[in-house]
Amino acid sequence: MDINEKSYELGSKRSVIRELFEYGKKRKAEIGEDKVFDFSLGNPSVKPPKKVKDTLIKLLNSDNETALHGYTSAQGDIATRGAVADSLNKLYRGKILPDLIYMTCGAAASLTITLKALSNCGDECVVFAPFFTEYRVFIENAGAKVVVSKPEEKTFQIDFDDLQNKITAKTKAVIINSPNNPSGVIYTESTIERLSKILNGKEKEYGHAIYLISDEPYRELVYGEKIVPFVMNYYQNSIVCYSYSKSLSLPGERIGYIAVSPECKGSGKVFNAVCGAGRSLGFVCAPSMFQKLIAECADLTVDVSAYKENRDILYENLKSFGYECVNPDGAFYLLVKCFGDSAATFCEKAKKHEILVVPCDDFGISGYVRIAYCVKKETIVNSLPHFLALAEEYK
Amino acid sequence: MDINEKSYELGSKRSVIRELFEYGKKRKAEIGEDKVFDFSLGNPSVKPPKKVKDTLIKLLNSDNETALHGYTSAQGDIATRGAVADSLNKLYRGKILPDLIYMTCGAAASLTITLKALSNCGDECVVFAPFFTEYRVFIENAGAKVVVSKPEEKTFQIDFDDLQNKITAKTKAVIINSPNNPSGVIYTESTIERLSKILNGKEKEYGHAIYLISDEPYRELVYGEKIVPFVMNYYQNSIVCYSYSKSLSLPGERIGYIAVSPECKGSGKVFNAVCGAGRSLGFVCAPSMFQKLIAECADLTVDVSAYKENRDILYENLKSFGYECVNPDGAFYLLVKCFGDSAATFCEKAKKHEILVVPCDDFGISGYVRIAYCVKKETIVNSLPHFLALAEEYK
Repeated sequence: MDINEKSYELGSKRSVIRELFEYGKKRKAEIGEDKVFDFSLGNPSVKPPKKVKDTLIKLLNSDNETALHGYTSAQGDIATRGAVADSLNKLYRGKILPDLIYMTCGAAASLTITLKALSNCGDECVVFAPFFTEYRVFIENAGAKVVVSKPEEKTFQIDFDDLQNKITAKTKAVIINSPNNPSGVIYTESTIERLSKILNGKEKEYGHAIYLISDEPYRELVYGEKIVPFVMNYYQNSIVCYSYSKSLSLPGERIGYIAVSPECKGSGKVFNAVCGAGRSLGFVCAPSMFQKLIAECADLTVDVSAYKENRDILYENLKSFGYECVNPDGAFYLLVKCFGDSAATFCEKAKKHEILVVPCDDFGISGYVRIAYCVKKETIVNSLPHFLALAEEYK
Repeated sequence: MDINEKSYELGSKRSVIRELFEYGKKRKAEIGEDKVFDFSLGNPSVKPPKKVKDTLIKLLNSDNETALHGYTSAQGDIATRGAVADSLNKLYRGKILPDLIYMTCGAAASLTITLKALSNCGDECVVFAPFFTEYRVFIENAGAKVVVSKPEEKTFQIDFDDLQNKITAKTKAVIINSPNNPSGVIYTESTIERLSKILNGKEKEYGHAIYLISDEPYRELVYGEKIVPFVMNYYQNSIVCYSYSKSLSLPGERIGYIAVSPECKGSGKVFNAVCGAGRSLGFVCAPSMFQKLIAECADLTVDVSAYKENRDILYENLKSFGYECVNPDGAFYLLVKCFGDSAATFCEKAKKHEILVVPCDDFGISGYVRIAYCVKKETIVNSLPHFLALAEEYK
């Protein structure tokens, strides 16, 4: 083939999510916007905090336009990195300095850069089902191999017996994502502690570092009294990959960071490798005006009460209709067990009731669908009779 | 090594340009901002057109903030791709449609994505000296090998005898950059025609496509009556990599595109491979608000008269001082031949005269330095006695 086969394959295969979304647009045109209940996409539905708009307009009205839009250093603007470090130090019992913060074009970039910084050909990277589908693409881009560890049933915490068997001498890294896409589950402190203990043991056994990559775009989207344990407090060789896509509702603006724990073995070297990986992948600097925004807004979070209200209505009602749901403490996803059928068949039946949900096979678990409830409240409320009718079809 | 050696190496080796820039900052602190003549960085010094600021503020004041900052499709917002296609069709004698335009996070991303879309392991990619230093990094990231073709002396057009010898059965692509960084030279129509003829011949000889990648961030920075021939008019298998960094003075905002020629063999497949490569490298979409800006500003260009004035003062004076300069028709760089010494020694001597210029060895030519004249006019004017003193030191 004249071109790169793998790139062609990745670009020509439409994702299930994208296909559903396109179907939804078509269907809405046919029967009306409010008659289709599209829960396919994880696109934030809550506005950014007011200070975001105010700050952007203030920056645009400042007197140095060439500096505002100019290159920053590859690692990021120093004031921005300082603000991120200050923000993280509210979670971290140690002290992280700006020189271990690397600003990125969002979470996907944070992950591809980190994986390329760490991985050598033939390395293995463990992910926990259910996992964000693109992890596979990113890990393979770094020349490493995906190893899937299955979750504990019902709670969707880590199955440690399974994990013990999945870590080998070739394991370079483990990726966690809590709150989780697609389950909404938060790993408890006890889960993180056990994970840390096992990784420490395996590091000793194999005589090399095993990095814990924590993908945290949903860190602030948490409901009730739940707490997301901050990994740097529990494990030395940890690297945090973050994005402001969800916490500030800026998914399209591509702004996030990588933070290497100061307790990480050879943290300075790991940081240099991050810089080199970013350079080779074609990331020159994170978008400059949004970096300057983060310097002033690193500690803000969108009003999550709308998401919580959606979750409560959906979870309570679906349970009462007989659906088995994983209890979601964060993010804006609800994982629902399919009645009897395969997820694909279940989703087709749901479509007949004008409900669009995503089968989770590509997330590494079968028999489940994901509901992205980052939609208007009325979409949730109006969808309920349709969910009920779908459940009754199975009785 | 626990981490990826190549990434570490790329991230820990400071570039000559970056080192000079840091030295300049230190030196300015010691002897005063106006006493150091820093020509190291290609950071635009001309403001964006007024409409850029006006449009951004208008967008921020529009009523749908979640849509403004939301994900676009991976290829880009459809209105933006339409505006880019319309803009290109003013240069192109054929007709390019939006479905062959892929919006990117700037020129570096355009190149890494295109190279990864095309290259298989062991492929070769020809670049013409002097070439932007990062080409080497980007080509190697795609698993391909860099082959350097030397320029014709004095004119810095292509040396076609050398090129004939550099293309082999393994050649997947050829990268041109006109107007050129670091020489400012524009490839003439006759150069592009001869290049096209040779590539067509080699395609027939080897029985596969050889892609012409045209890296054009300086396309609009042209002085006098000069014209930059648009490659799609001359060669079928061509792909344009563009960035608005220079034409709109937005280098830090990371906004550009890839345009696959509709005459390119299997253009749809090539476009799919571009989408797949972007996905695997971690590019989700180009920054959304700046995409919406481009939908309204694709045809604007900064006022290049300040750059032209700088060029004229610098070129005329340096020639009169006895410097041998390559005649620059575009971009904002001037290539100057070093007196006698190696470029490194010449640059050290220049530093003693408080002049900071970049040795071009990493650009693939020895005995030359690059002057980035995207600075204030007074910096140029005040530097002249220092350039004269440096020249006299060699007499």
